[in-house]
Amino acid sequence: MDEILTMAKKAREAASLVAALPSPKRKSVLLKIADNLVRRGEEIIASNGKDVVEGKKNGLSNAMIDRLALDSERIAAIASGIREIADQPDPVGEITKMWTRPNGLLVGKMRIPLGVVGIIYESRPNVTADAAALCLKSGNAVLLRGGSEALESNLAIGRIIQGSLSEEGIPKEAVQVIPIPDRKAIFEMVQLEDYLDLIIPRGGEGLIRFVVENSRVPVIKHYEGVCHIFVDETADTDMAENICINAKVQRPGVCNAMETLLVHEAISREFLPVMVKKFRDIGVEVRGCEKTQSLCPGDVVPASEEDWPTEYLDLILSVKVVSGLDEAISHIETYGSAHTESIITRDYSNAQRFLKRVNSSVVLVNASTRFSDGQQLGLGAEIGISTTKLHAFGPMGASDLTTTKFIIFGEGQVRA
Amino acid sequence: MDEILTMAKKAREAASLVAALPSPKRKSVLLKIADNLVRRGEEIIASNGKDVVEGKKNGLSNAMIDRLALDSERIAAIASGIREIADQPDPVGEITKMWTRPNGLLVGKMRIPLGVVGIIYESRPNVTADAAALCLKSGNAVLLRGGSEALESNLAIGRIIQGSLSEEGIPKEAVQVIPIPDRKAIFEMVQLEDYLDLIIPRGGEGLIRFVVENSRVPVIKHYEGVCHIFVDETADTDMAENICINAKVQRPGVCNAMETLLVHEAISREFLPVMVKKFRDIGVEVRGCEKTQSLCPGDVVPASEEDWPTEYLDLILSVKVVSGLDEAISHIETYGSAHTESIITRDYSNAQRFLKRVNSSVVLVNASTRFSDGQQLGLGAEIGISTTKLHAFGPMGASDLTTTKFIIFGEGQVRA
Repeated sequence: MDEILTMAKKAREAASLVAALPSPKRKSVLLKIADNLVRRGEEIIASNGKDVVEGKKNGLSNAMIDRLALDSERIAAIASGIREIADQPDPVGEITKMWTRPNGLLVGKMRIPLGVVGIIYESRPNVTADAAALCLKSGNAVLLRGGSEALESNLAIGRIIQGSLSEEGIPKEAVQVIPIPDRKAIFEMVQLEDYLDLIIPRGGEGLIRFVVENSRVPVIKHYEGVCHIFVDETADTDMAENICINAKVQRPGVCNAMETLLVHEAISREFLPVMVKKFRDIGVEVRGCEKTQSLCPGDVVPASEEDWPTEYLDLILSVKVVSGLDEAISHIETYGSAHTESIITRDYSNAQRFLKRVNSSVVLVNASTRFSDGQQLGLGAEIGISTTKLHAFGPMGASDLTTTKFIIFGEGQVRA
Repeated sequence: MDEILTMAKKAREAASLVAALPSPKRKSVLLKIADNLVRRGEEIIASNGKDVVEGKKNGLSNAMIDRLALDSERIAAIASGIREIADQPDPVGEITKMWTRPNGLLVGKMRIPLGVVGIIYESRPNVTADAAALCLKSGNAVLLRGGSEALESNLAIGRIIQGSLSEEGIPKEAVQVIPIPDRKAIFEMVQLEDYLDLIIPRGGEGLIRFVVENSRVPVIKHYEGVCHIFVDETADTDMAENICINAKVQRPGVCNAMETLLVHEAISREFLPVMVKKFRDIGVEVRGCEKTQSLCPGDVVPASEEDWPTEYLDLILSVKVVSGLDEAISHIETYGSAHTESIITRDYSNAQRFLKRVNSSVVLVNASTRFSDGQQLGLGAEIGISTTKLHAFGPMGASDLTTTKFIIFGEGQVRA
C-alpha cells in the first residue's frame, strides 16, 4: 500500500514545520478547527448519516449505533473539547528541570514534540477531532486510522481539519485520515518505523493485540482496567458506600469503573450487608467470596477464581473479604491490571502504605476510581490511559506526546 | 530455552521485593557490592584471564582484548563507579509534580521502578556491574546478557553481586547473568513481554537491529551519533578551535565525538585554514566540501555525499561551509542522527534559535559535544544514550529506569 507510505512521508515533512510553529499559532489553529467543525456541522452530520445507515444495514447493535451517531449537540461538545485543549498551557518548550554543573555548564531539559504520532481507533468519530487536537497542541503531526464503521464521518472531520490548517498556512498533511478501511492498512502503518514515532491503539483487546504483535513502531497500550477499592477497617462507612456506588455504577462500561471490592474483615459484618443490599437495589449482580456469601445470604452468587481477574464492564461486581491491608495489596498485585486502585480509610499510616506500595498507574485515598481520567486530573483531554510503564503510565495528556531534549549553555567548556 | 523463562519469572518475583526496599537498604547493598568486587578481585581477574586467553585464541583484535581485560586498577574503578551511584539521590519515590484540583483532590506524580530490565551488551565486563548497580539503585530487577567473549568475567561479577544481595537479605534473583552465549538466548529473552518491562541493547548496530526486529518487549535503542559542531560567523575562534579539537580528538571512537564540522562562510576564510592545519598536525583526515577544499588546498580530501551521514568513530572529519544558521540546521536535520550538536557563537539570538530549533537529544552552546554523557551531565553513571524519543532521549541515568504513577489524596470525592 504505497498510499500509506506516501501519507507517512508527508506527515514526517509536515511534522518538522508543526514542531517549529510558535505557541500562539498552534492555539489559533485549534480555535479555527473548533469554529469550522460547528460551522460545517451539516456536512459532518450528512457523512455520519451514511455511516449510520450502513451500520444498521450491517447489524450494528443499538449501543454501537449510539456511539457512532453525531448530531449538532455532539459536534458542539467536540468543538468545546478542542477549545479546552487550545486553552491548556503549551507543553512544547517547557523546561522540566535545570541545574548547574561544577564546571559551570548550565544544563536543562526542554520538552519537544515526538514527531509523527499514529492513532488507531474504533467507532467513535469524536476521537478523530480530539486526537488531532492533542497532537497539534503538542506540536506533532498525526496519522489517524479510525474504524471502518465511521469512515465517512472521520473523513468529513478530517477534511474540515485540513481546511482549517490550510487557512492558517500550515501544511494540511499535519493531520491525515487514512481512507482505507482494510485491516491491512493498520499492518502497513505499523511497519513504518522510519516515519512514525509512536502508535497509540484505542479500542478492543483484539485491535490492541494485533497492533502490539505487528508493530515495529513503539506502541503505548491501554489494556483493561480491573480496578479495586479496598475498604479498610477504619473506613467511614458512609463515605465508603458513596464512593463504591460511584465507582461501580456511575458508568460501568469504562475502564476506570470498580470491578472488585475488597473489604477488611473487621468492618465486613457492619459494612457488607448494607453495601451489598444497596448494590442489589440498583441492579448490580454481586459475586462474593465465601465470607461475603455468609454475610449476605441470598444477595450474592458465589465468585469463582475466574472472577478476580475479570473486567466486567457491566453491572457486575466481585467482592472479597480480606484479613487486612497486606492481603488487599497482594490480591491487587496478583489479579489486578495495574490500572487504578483506591483505599477508603481513616488511618493515616495505612493510607500512606497503600499509596507507596501499590504500583498501579493511579492510586487513590478516599476517592472514586472514576477520577482516573485525564480531564478529571487536570491534564486537559486525554489521548488514552497507558497500562504499560514505558514513557507514560496512566492517563496521558498533550504533554505525554512530547519528549525532552537536553539544552546546555556553555562558555567554552571542553572535556578533560 | 526454559532456562531463560525460569530466570525471567524469578526476576519478576524479585522485582516486587526490590521495588519495596527502603532507600537506605538499596544504598547499602550497592556499597556492599563495591566492597566485595574489590575484596574478591582475584576471582574476577582469574575468570577474566580465561576470557582473554580464549579471545586471543579466537583472534580478537588488540583493541578488543584491551576492552575485555580487567586488572585490579580497573576493578577498583568499577567499585568506585558503584559507590558514586550509591551516593546519588534516590529516584524512587520522588514526587515530580503535585497540584490541587478544583474539587479538592490533591494529585501528584511519584517515581516508581519499571520492574524488570533486560540489558544486552557486548565485550566490556564493567557493564555487568554498572548496569546491575543502576537497576538496583532505581529499584528494578535486571537480566544481564553480555557478550560471549566476556562470559567468564560476567559470571564471576554476577556471582559476587548475588553473594552481596544474599548477605543483605535481598533475593539474589534481582540480578541474574544469563550464562548462554548463543544468540538464540537473546531471541528468547526479547520474547518475554510478560516478564520484562524494558530491553536496552548496548553494542554494535547489528546487535541493536537484531533486538529491535525481534523484540516484543519495549526497546530503548542507542544507534549511532553523527554529531555536528556549527561555528557561527561571530564565534570566538580560539574557543571554536579548542572545542572542535576536544570534540574530535579527545576520544574519537565514541558516539558523542564530532563527525561533521559546519562553518559559517563569513568566518570560513579566517577560521578554516588554521583549524584544518591543526587537525592535520594531530593526524586527523579532513574531508571537505568544495569551498573547504579551495580554502585549504592540499590539506583536505574531497568529501562525497556518503560522508555527511557517516559516523567515522575515527580520526576522520567531514567539513562543510554553509551560508548561515538556517543551512546548518537543515544540514543537521537531513544528515544527522539526532544525537548531539553544538553551536559556537557570540550571538545571543543565534544561540537561542539553535537551542530551540535543533531537536537532537543534546544541544549545546559553546561547549564540546563530548559532554553528552550521563556522568558529565550529573546523572551519575549512565545506562546508555537513547537516540529514540520515547521514554528517554539522550543520556539516561538511574531515574530514566523509573516511571511515574499518579497518587491522589481525597476526602470522599466522587465523580459527578
